[in-house]
Amino acid sequence: MEPKNLFLQIPDSFQGEVFEALLETEHFVLERIISSGQATPLGEWYDQDTSEWVILLSGSAGFLLESEKNIQVMHPGDYVHIPAHQRHRVEWTDSGHKTVWLALHYK
Amino acid sequence: MEPKNLFLQIPDSFQGEVFEALLETEHFVLERIISSGQATPLGEWYDQDTSEWVILLSGSAGFLLESEKNIQVMHPGDYVHIPAHQRHRVEWTDSGHKTVWLALHYK
Repeated sequence: MEPKNLFLQIPDSFQGEVFEALLETEHFVLERIISSGQATPLGEWYDQDTSEWVILLSGSAGFLLESEKNIQVMHPGDYVHIPAHQRHRVEWTDSGHKTVWLALHYK
Repeated sequence: MEPKNLFLQIPDSFQGEVFEALLETEHFVLERIISSGQATPLGEWYDQDTSEWVILLSGSAGFLLESEKNIQVMHPGDYVHIPAHQRHRVEWTDSGHKTVWLALHYK
């Protein structure tokens, strides 16, 4: 069994973000997300039925909770917990490097 | 809400590995593990009742499944899936740098 690598097999070019389920049970989904400069569209918020624990592992991003005023700049290793229905946005992601996230969505 | 960082707040000195539950439900535990040269004791195997998805995020390690002959050298970003009761060992971890793992144990 060769280990797989989270930072490899990243598509070279694409228009949108890339979502890949790494592991899925009836209780959770573990997902790799690759951003390449994308942001949540202006005026839109994520409002998820599931809770999410998410860590940024390469690149960088600006993260905003609706309940807070300040955009948090996230660097590699930074993680946040987002309870279900806590509205949030990604204000920006690094436009020069791929931003790799590992997200655990659960009920 | 300030993000926490997986690579910070690492104890400077300790004798054993450091295990920290980051998130826990009745269905899974997400855990940070910090190794500093430790290995599974000679002749011993991990034999877990839960399945595990584990990624190495800094440092390096030698990983062995009982069912395989070769030790896999794991580098940052490498991840493996270990079904419950698949016996495995960590042959070595980097003695010069902290090895940080993120493990998801689940039923």
